[in-house]
Amino acid sequence: MYDLLTGLSVIEASSFVASPTAGLYCAQMGAEVIRVDQVGGGPDFRRWPVTKANDSLYWENLNRAKKSVALDLGRPEGRELLQALVRATGQFITNFPVDGFLSHPTLAEGRPDLITVRVMGWAHGAPALDYTVNNSVGYPMLTGAGPEPVNHVLPAWDLLTGAYAAFALLAAIQRRSATAMGGEVRIPLSDVAIGTVANLGGVAEVLYTGVNRPRLGNAVYGLFGRDFVTADGERTMIVVVTPRQWANLVAALGLGEAIAALEASRGVTFATDDGLRFAHRDALYPMFECAVAARSLKDLTAAFDVGGIVHSPYRTMLNAVQDRALVADNPIFGQADNPSGFAYPAAGAFATLPQSERQPPRAAPRNGAHSEEILADRLSLPSGEIARLIDAGIVGIA
Amino acid sequence: MYDLLTGLSVIEASSFVASPTAGLYCAQMGAEVIRVDQVGGGPDFRRWPVTKANDSLYWENLNRAKKSVALDLGRPEGRELLQALVRATGQFITNFPVDGFLSHPTLAEGRPDLITVRVMGWAHGAPALDYTVNNSVGYPMLTGAGPEPVNHVLPAWDLLTGAYAAFALLAAIQRRSATAMGGEVRIPLSDVAIGTVANLGGVAEVLYTGVNRPRLGNAVYGLFGRDFVTADGERTMIVVVTPRQWANLVAALGLGEAIAALEASRGVTFATDDGLRFAHRDALYPMFECAVAARSLKDLTAAFDVGGIVHSPYRTMLNAVQDRALVADNPIFGQADNPSGFAYPAAGAFATLPQSERQPPRAAPRNGAHSEEILADRLSLPSGEIARLIDAGIVGIA
Repeated sequence: MYDLLTGLSVIEASSFVASPTAGLYCAQMGAEVIRVDQVGGGPDFRRWPVTKANDSLYWENLNRAKKSVALDLGRPEGRELLQALVRATGQFITNFPVDGFLSHPTLAEGRPDLITVRVMGWAHGAPALDYTVNNSVGYPMLTGAGPEPVNHVLPAWDLLTGAYAAFALLAAIQRRSATAMGGEVRIPLSDVAIGTVANLGGVAEVLYTGVNRPRLGNAVYGLFGRDFVTADGERTMIVVVTPRQWANLVAALGLGEAIAALEASRGVTFATDDGLRFAHRDALYPMFECAVAARSLKDLTAAFDVGGIVHSPYRTMLNAVQDRALVADNPIFGQADNPSGFAYPAAGAFATLPQSERQPPRAAPRNGAHSEEILADRLSLPSGEIARLIDAGIVGIA
Repeated sequence: MYDLLTGLSVIEASSFVASPTAGLYCAQMGAEVIRVDQVGGGPDFRRWPVTKANDSLYWENLNRAKKSVALDLGRPEGRELLQALVRATGQFITNFPVDGFLSHPTLAEGRPDLITVRVMGWAHGAPALDYTVNNSVGYPMLTGAGPEPVNHVLPAWDLLTGAYAAFALLAAIQRRSATAMGGEVRIPLSDVAIGTVANLGGVAEVLYTGVNRPRLGNAVYGLFGRDFVTADGERTMIVVVTPRQWANLVAALGLGEAIAALEASRGVTFATDDGLRFAHRDALYPMFECAVAARSLKDLTAAFDVGGIVHSPYRTMLNAVQDRALVADNPIFGQADNPSGFAYPAAGAFATLPQSERQPPRAAPRNGAHSEEILADRLSLPSGEIARLIDAGIVGIA
């Protein structure tokens, strides 16, 4: 938690990964992020992983440091309260449909400077998820050794979309500060995906070559980078992106003469050109396989670290989480209460600001924990009216 | 291109993916983003994919709509010019090392309100790349059918870090507007990766269960979602995240009776619970395999689209790029000149603002194309001095 966004308040009506992470990043930077949830929880409130008591370890991490107002969004009165909260606040993050009761034109009635950031599936409004836009743009056909397609496990498009949505919200606020203009910002997963293919050169590449890039297993396209197995059976990833790293890697593995001979026979030099190191991988990779297979991971790690060589052994997620430097002793983690009651290191903002004090991470809210506070403060509802709404099941409380 | 960030100027000294995308997203929203490049190009200036003339299709897409000042950063005079540009501008995005001539304390001398956003590898300063932090946190051991680890091809950590860096820059500017305080924002790839494992519930999960999640091939953890093969041999991904999608999928495939029988025999109901649909996948997936295998993709697509079911066939990147709806007719794409001379659809901002006019994408700069303009405007260098610097090879021009 840092206080970069102190004073900013955002209503969030969202589920799954993309839209909740946009709110999470804002909350971790000090914004007041008020989730408006269906009474009892939205569609992802019990999403796995869950505890034995069916509390979601997923939900309680994606919604840290936020507040929760619970409303029955199936009834007109609940929907009107959400609309009123959005109008009273002025900033809204959602993945609800473009049309309907949370359409931007509807919400902007009486609040012309409203900013709505909307995460979508397909740009035309049809539903899509990370795992379907991913195969729509072709990555599973490039992943793994083949011939079968391989899906990613990390919901990468959701995550990129969420961070971009947080950025777009602040950019829209910046314009509003200068011009008083609000508006809707739509961010479809499908456009994030195909736009990223373009940004990485993929659209240009397939149109230039007319063919798909070859499947490379665990090798990286266009440079020297791959997994290798050590003498003690460990698998490690080695990637070279600078001339110095290349020179130091060749030296660390004692491959200077062999590389020089290869360079002479093929009439090239590998000293400064990523592409040549990739183009001649048929000859280079076997040399490195032998050299890595002759030494232990420990021995190689010592040699590589001295040379500033980028490498890292493969490990499981459990091993990673047990690495004290990465979790227990990492300042981005801290203790926070959790709705599940299970205690474990909680993450704060990814960023570190050396000139500012990091505040500890906070818990996710219980469903409806802030209903009374927010309805009173934001909409000036009298306590009797709030009591009536609670009795009627329009408003839920924790 | 949109004009949300008009008036914002940023110096960018960066390479690879994360840091350049942070600048790209800002430039596509109207900021003036001035790359300071090594004369002749930095370490990724020729990164593959490249044309026959060795122009990088990767570089020219990651650096659209930016300006380029070329300096010899190997010489003190070139380094001092970069420092002076950063101080004169006040906002800086970089992946240069924490220490050295671009350290924040050095740059903030004489510019105490400077904001530096620095993308890093490991938080302690050692180098790391997307493909090594990825295996450090365990995803390759969960990807694919196993037993070998499978790297992702999409540089997901770089992309998430880049978008988060753009967000963090605007958040830091927001604080400075309120408090006049600058500062450094460090964003290590390693913290983005382990922090994301935590945000998705992964840290809690492995500590709660004490074991790693099973490898699931192309199935999604914790819900109903997997690839299926149609009667005509097409592979399609189907994912269910709402009760309505489940009901419609079961109906579309005529599986109502079979599912009811399974529910009766196992004493569960699948109507509303993602987790149960996952827990009983041993029985559910074979039913759906048979039902999907009996029908053509075209037939299934029609039935699924009517029911709002999230599905998408696998395709190659070339197929995706040839899909007119995704690229040629997609308003996020437009025409722009390219340094390579090759013409193809260029991407603009992922976001669409229905109330604002989208301006066409712009070209990446030639190395040093804006050296004279920026050194004159920003540092008030007289033309004779600029000419001397060019003659001395300290400054490069296009």
